[in-house]
Amino acid sequence: MRIGVLGTGMVGSAIATKLVRVGHEVTMGARAPDNENAARWVAEVGEGASQGTFADAAAFGELAFNCTAGTASLEALDVAGGPNLAGKTLVDVANPLDHTRDGPPMALVYDGDSLAEQIQRALPKTRVVKALNTMNCEVMVDPSRVPGGGHDVFVCGDDPSAKEQVVALLRSFGWAPERIVDLGDLTAARGTEAYLRLWLPLRIALGTNDFNIRVEGRPQST
Amino acid sequence: MRIGVLGTGMVGSAIATKLVRVGHEVTMGARAPDNENAARWVAEVGEGASQGTFADAAAFGELAFNCTAGTASLEALDVAGGPNLAGKTLVDVANPLDHTRDGPPMALVYDGDSLAEQIQRALPKTRVVKALNTMNCEVMVDPSRVPGGGHDVFVCGDDPSAKEQVVALLRSFGWAPERIVDLGDLTAARGTEAYLRLWLPLRIALGTNDFNIRVEGRPQST
Repeated sequence: MRIGVLGTGMVGSAIATKLVRVGHEVTMGARAPDNENAARWVAEVGEGASQGTFADAAAFGELAFNCTAGTASLEALDVAGGPNLAGKTLVDVANPLDHTRDGPPMALVYDGDSLAEQIQRALPKTRVVKALNTMNCEVMVDPSRVPGGGHDVFVCGDDPSAKEQVVALLRSFGWAPERIVDLGDLTAARGTEAYLRLWLPLRIALGTNDFNIRVEGRPQST
Repeated sequence: MRIGVLGTGMVGSAIATKLVRVGHEVTMGARAPDNENAARWVAEVGEGASQGTFADAAAFGELAFNCTAGTASLEALDVAGGPNLAGKTLVDVANPLDHTRDGPPMALVYDGDSLAEQIQRALPKTRVVKALNTMNCEVMVDPSRVPGGGHDVFVCGDDPSAKEQVVALLRSFGWAPERIVDLGDLTAARGTEAYLRLWLPLRIALGTNDFNIRVEGRPQST
């Protein structure tokens, strides 16, 4: 599949690399067509990897990942262009983090809203699925990094077929089907985004990025 | 030990009953000394159970639990009286939930703050420990209700000896020592309170209250 990855940071790079490794063609999008991070990534990954603007990446992809900084996502997606993303699935991996305060960054939360829902409202013709935002980017693309008995990735979104597409991608990343938890519609993103406020102290207490949570007590059928 | 439980709802009742069963004397505190819920609880539990005002329960306890509704906790603790709680450990189990909107209740979160920290500032001579607020009350006092391979309870607070007291109580509730996760100081309550925004959609998706999360990837020593 052709996939656009918006964002050239650690998350975008991890996702884009994994996507190429499992057989997709990926254009990494940035504000500038000659973004240095993206150029380095293309040189490292080689065949299947290309770079361009946000709009180039959005137009190229049959599906796209939003891996931009959460506080900049709406603007980046506006630049990417609604028509370039219309009719496509957008996997929103972003977390809005406030780095302007002293101390560790603070995950922003919105009363009765979420970044994912804001994106969905801005792109009504796109099928937004929130996923993967509850863990470190290296764990996103290699769940086996976390020792123990398995841990969970959450997906939510308003379009069942878009969620199915994302579940298939997650399986190709190494996620066992029974460890992919469908939280329902996109309002559940309020929860997975707010969870970041627990992820951060957990990260500090555990002293590692290679951790994640597992939901115990799920019905046996899942 | 003599313990005061502030609050007569499902959480207060579950905690107070368990405390009596494991050998403590408990006064359940309410706004009115003859609160009907508390009277029913005393009648059910019998020896070891008594009721009184918030101030009675706070004065009675060598340690106290805040099981009031989170949005009413600061007022209830003000009525309980700072001097009645001075020098004591207060286990804050409360979550501030907004029931005024349509749909399921919304967990309130505070930028750079938490209910537990607000309580600590209001009661500077009390040692506040946040614990147990990330699960249903029946799971709090009987972790074996959740099937699977074990799940975690978080504690945080600024006073290590107070946390040790709470860990000992949690062990008496049936929590294995390796499943009690110390998140550090009380600022981590910002995380455990925000997690409620994920708990609520999880509850809906799973269709049961008997679930909880387990952190995978913790260092082997814990």
